[in-house]
Amino acid sequence: MAFDPATLTFDADGLLPAIAQDAESGEVLMLAWMNAEAVARTLSSGRVTYWSRSRQSFWIKGETSGHVQHLVEMRVDCDRDCLLVLVRQEGPACHTGRRSCFYTAIRDGDEVEIMAPEA
Amino acid sequence: MAFDPATLTFDADGLLPAIAQDAESGEVLMLAWMNAEAVARTLSSGRVTYWSRSRQSFWIKGETSGHVQHLVEMRVDCDRDCLLVLVRQEGPACHTGRRSCFYTAIRDGDEVEIMAPEA
Repeated sequence: MAFDPATLTFDADGLLPAIAQDAESGEVLMLAWMNAEAVARTLSSGRVTYWSRSRQSFWIKGETSGHVQHLVEMRVDCDRDCLLVLVRQEGPACHTGRRSCFYTAIRDGDEVEIMAPEA
Repeated sequence: MAFDPATLTFDADGLLPAIAQDAESGEVLMLAWMNAEAVARTLSSGRVTYWSRSRQSFWIKGETSGHVQHLVEMRVDCDRDCLLVLVRQEGPACHTGRRSCFYTAIRDGDEVEIMAPEA
C-alpha cells in the first residue's frame, strides 16, 4: 500500500513525535516532532527533517551543526500517531555534544549523568 | 541530585512522551504518555505506568493483558520533556500481539508489515 503522510494521526498542532534511533547500535538518540510535510521531506530527501516548535520552522537536522541524520528507514506505530526513524547519525545527536539526548539516568532516586560530551 | 518528577517539562495536558525500549535487545517497543504521578508511580513500583489519554486514567502496562513492563532504568532527555524507559517486557508490547508497535516500515514509498503477531 502506498504510504501517504496525510494518513498519519497528528495532534492539535499538526505534529507527531518522531523517535530517532541509531540504525546500527540501536541507541535511542532523541525525540523531536514532525508535521506531514516534514515526514514527506524526510522520505524524499533521505535527511531527517523535523518541525521546530520553538522556531516554528522546518529543521533539517544537522543543517547548521553538520550533525546530519541520514534516514535508513522510517517506521509507523500501530496507532499511526508516532514514528520511529532509524538513522545513520553524523557526530553527536544532542545539542550538548553528547551522542544521545538521554544522558541523564534516574538511579536510586538521584539524577546521574551517564554520558559525557564527545571531544 | 535528587530527582523530582515535578521538575520535568509537561505539555498543556500535563503529559510528556515516554519511549519504552527493551533493555536487552535495544528494540524500541512503543511510545506512550506519562504525567508526573505516572512517573512517580513507575519509579516507586518498578512497573511502567502510563497515563491513558483515551481512558483518562492511569494505565499500569500489562495490568489486564499480563504483558508487564518491568522498569530497568528511566532516563530523561536534555530538554526534560521526554523520557526513555528501559524495560524488561513480558510478552508482546503492542496490543496487536506484536513485539513492538513499530511493525510497519516505509520502503520504496509503500507500507510494509515487517513483524507478525506472536503466537
